[in-house]
Amino acid sequence: MIWRDKGIMQRFKTCVSYDGAKYSGWQVQPRDVSVQGTIEAALKELSGEIVKVHGSGRTDQGVHARHQFAHFDLEKKFSGKALRRALNALLPDDIRILNAVKVPDSFHARYSAVSKEYRYFIFNAEVMPPMVRAYRTHVRSALDIGAMQLVAKQLVGEHDFSAFSASGNKSIDNYVRNLFELKVSKRGSEIVITAKSNGFLYKMVRSIAGCLIKAGKGQITPKQVAEVLKSRKRTQHVETAKPQGLFLWNVSYK
Amino acid sequence: MIWRDKGIMQRFKTCVSYDGAKYSGWQVQPRDVSVQGTIEAALKELSGEIVKVHGSGRTDQGVHARHQFAHFDLEKKFSGKALRRALNALLPDDIRILNAVKVPDSFHARYSAVSKEYRYFIFNAEVMPPMVRAYRTHVRSALDIGAMQLVAKQLVGEHDFSAFSASGNKSIDNYVRNLFELKVSKRGSEIVITAKSNGFLYKMVRSIAGCLIKAGKGQITPKQVAEVLKSRKRTQHVETAKPQGLFLWNVSYK
Repeated sequence: MIWRDKGIMQRFKTCVSYDGAKYSGWQVQPRDVSVQGTIEAALKELSGEIVKVHGSGRTDQGVHARHQFAHFDLEKKFSGKALRRALNALLPDDIRILNAVKVPDSFHARYSAVSKEYRYFIFNAEVMPPMVRAYRTHVRSALDIGAMQLVAKQLVGEHDFSAFSASGNKSIDNYVRNLFELKVSKRGSEIVITAKSNGFLYKMVRSIAGCLIKAGKGQITPKQVAEVLKSRKRTQHVETAKPQGLFLWNVSYK
Repeated sequence: MIWRDKGIMQRFKTCVSYDGAKYSGWQVQPRDVSVQGTIEAALKELSGEIVKVHGSGRTDQGVHARHQFAHFDLEKKFSGKALRRALNALLPDDIRILNAVKVPDSFHARYSAVSKEYRYFIFNAEVMPPMVRAYRTHVRSALDIGAMQLVAKQLVGEHDFSAFSASGNKSIDNYVRNLFELKVSKRGSEIVITAKSNGFLYKMVRSIAGCLIKAGKGQITPKQVAEVLKSRKRTQHVETAKPQGLFLWNVSYK
């Protein structure tokens, strides 16, 4: 039996970066390989302890994280640097611990978070260079950035985002979120959608990205988007954009 | 029999970008999958013709190309754009035809080239983010950029580069090359070595990169490098740096 006494355990906050291509997502799923499960296995190998890793939130299958944050409690003694080094030596190279620091027990990767930033990357040209193919969504036809920016404006602010959440998510009853920022920018052939909020619904960023891509193709107007948002019902106007363009970019804490 | 009459054939110049990870290199090798062979197979499927693709030069196993150039002759009629589209539809997504244009028969991807540029990318920090791992060489210990730049200065210009070529290459008798430019720059954790020359010897860029990395670690001085160069003999001071950090960046034509 592994003896775990809350009193002598140390809580660590870690910043984790991962390439989501080969994972079923962040969260442990039966019979699938998840990022969380892979880190928990490395921690068990390292410490002999059964450690539950708490992320700031889930990311879906194929979605990447530049800076995901997680916390866990360890009984075995480590400095932050030694823990980072030891974990990276055990983890596959598509998951990296960028940072590990000791934090008080009051810190919680999910509940202490005040905002999150996601970025969605589109490569908008006839041909996509091989070197970016794993981290960009390829759109061949020229997107109208002005139209995308107008639609983005409709979505900024506090709204019920039911229409931009995947159906079947019945575990929550409040679909109101505050989208502080929704920005569309372009540099060369690369379009970046930046979304910041106090919390995101299931598939919300990819639904918004899918809608903005449609707007860029001239298939939906700002007025129609305002109506979809108001309807609080998901329609065919809202498509979930592919996962490989999406990055959990950062999480802010108090 | 496939009938090929030089007179009615059209020469195309193409710009090709590839992720070298899964290939034995540019050049066709028996029993291996090469970039050249993969493009030749796509051309055969497209035109029914046996087409030889001539590259500006070889790249080794695992080496990438941002802009490799190649030419070939086709009997079947295509516009440059249609050819690009058709080839990209047949090729795997780690090889992309960025551009295809009709050129006179006097154009030769290798012999018409006046200079080539390679770039070698090093990620110089304790932890390498997963998203760059396929295209960077990871060096954990902090490299001394000033020392690397001093060594680079020793190598610029016209020299016999025998000491920086892989042994066993007996098909050439002239090891003199003009290294117009050898630059080491740093931005954040990323170090880039830029090398431009009228021609490169086998494994020359990776040998130079390996030597510069040693210089950055304080394991070889500019004076020692000058002696190695002068000796025209490869020594233990010269190591071949890993292929995944190397890109054929561009080829210049008259």
